[in-house]
Amino acid sequence: MSDLSKNKIKWIRSLHQKKHREELGLFIIEGEKMVAETLVYAKDSIELIAYTNEFNIGQFDGESFEISIKELEQISLLKTPNKVFAILRQNKTNSSIDKKKLIIALDGIQDPGNLGTIMRIADWYGISDIVCSKTTVDCYNPKVVQASMGAIFRVNMHYLELEEWLSNCSLPIYGALLEGENVYNETLSKNGVLLMGNEGSGISTSLIPLINNPISIPRFGGAESLNVSVATAILVSEFFRC
Amino acid sequence: MSDLSKNKIKWIRSLHQKKHREELGLFIIEGEKMVAETLVYAKDSIELIAYTNEFNIGQFDGESFEISIKELEQISLLKTPNKVFAILRQNKTNSSIDKKKLIIALDGIQDPGNLGTIMRIADWYGISDIVCSKTTVDCYNPKVVQASMGAIFRVNMHYLELEEWLSNCSLPIYGALLEGENVYNETLSKNGVLLMGNEGSGISTSLIPLINNPISIPRFGGAESLNVSVATAILVSEFFRC
Repeated sequence: MSDLSKNKIKWIRSLHQKKHREELGLFIIEGEKMVAETLVYAKDSIELIAYTNEFNIGQFDGESFEISIKELEQISLLKTPNKVFAILRQNKTNSSIDKKKLIIALDGIQDPGNLGTIMRIADWYGISDIVCSKTTVDCYNPKVVQASMGAIFRVNMHYLELEEWLSNCSLPIYGALLEGENVYNETLSKNGVLLMGNEGSGISTSLIPLINNPISIPRFGGAESLNVSVATAILVSEFFRC
Repeated sequence: MSDLSKNKIKWIRSLHQKKHREELGLFIIEGEKMVAETLVYAKDSIELIAYTNEFNIGQFDGESFEISIKELEQISLLKTPNKVFAILRQNKTNSSIDKKKLIIALDGIQDPGNLGTIMRIADWYGISDIVCSKTTVDCYNPKVVQASMGAIFRVNMHYLELEEWLSNCSLPIYGALLEGENVYNETLSKNGVLLMGNEGSGISTSLIPLINNPISIPRFGGAESLNVSVATAILVSEFFRC
């Protein structure tokens, strides 16, 4: 335990930006529940913990600082910071993609809450890999990390040239399209790729010819669309239900 | 078109609070898409529109004000207000609950985004009624309205004494419980109640004995839980898939 210097605060605040997170291979988590879980499940990935006297840090040998609420407010991204703030190392293992399982492919998901929620769905169903276009929001964005509820530690995220990868993946590609086949009537393969598009514009025109199996969720009411994380949940469930 | 007086601004800002929205039976919508849709589908419920010169109001005979961006910032709830702001009348018809269809029952949903998303799911599947415990977040909360994407105009929301209503509803009650039966193996009734609990604490202890059919979504991976709107989507989908 030592004091948090002005330089350290400046350095921590630089991690609010994606550019610096990437350069340094670090990311931020906040709040009692999240940090407590990380101390149990992913202690080795912790770079630094800054905590107020309300947080019980227990046994932790890495770099840590007991700070005031005012200091916590200075480094936090939250409106109402919650007791503790930690910096973790990004998981940079270039793990291969498990093609025997369902893979989720995301084309330009923009909303951090949506990406985090989709990671949490993948984590629930035991999906190992999510492949993302480079236009998809950064999975180490603090709002994504928060919404993922720990999935960031269990689901492998791959940012890549999506068109190239889909062209070469040799798997059935299921694409969520409004004019796709009624998913409730389809026999779905156990392995394959489920491709989901951007919140506003859907799947990119260039990727549509790569879809072997266009699928859709039938609509019975008046809504124009479903939220992309909700649609992902319903479609993923169809792959696992039988 | 006329000027927005200081008193009017004060009155509009009072609607940021639930208490005043309830007293006056009004609510707020914001943004170009939302207001444009309302002008098409629910023009009669509009009490007032305040718009900047970037918004094309078209033919509207009700009360309206062309305002500056600065004035919009004064009345808006958004960090970056989007061209137009409107006040609508709440739908106070005491419509009866359609017991021939699936009904969603919500016990203490707190997050506005979750409630709005659940309303949008109901709207997609053509569910007419959502019954809510009085501890559930106000459906006219601006964040709920935003997330509902127009469902507020098509889905009937009923705030009531949930325990009493469930006790007397004479319908099969399906409750989402972690230790429930695997929903994928169940034969689900076409009408009935799907009861979903609070984000943190689940379904209230007092309501659990009222559940005839405890159901759950099987877990294949490491996540501790699913977001309540995601779980609602997967369960509602099961009722409609066959």
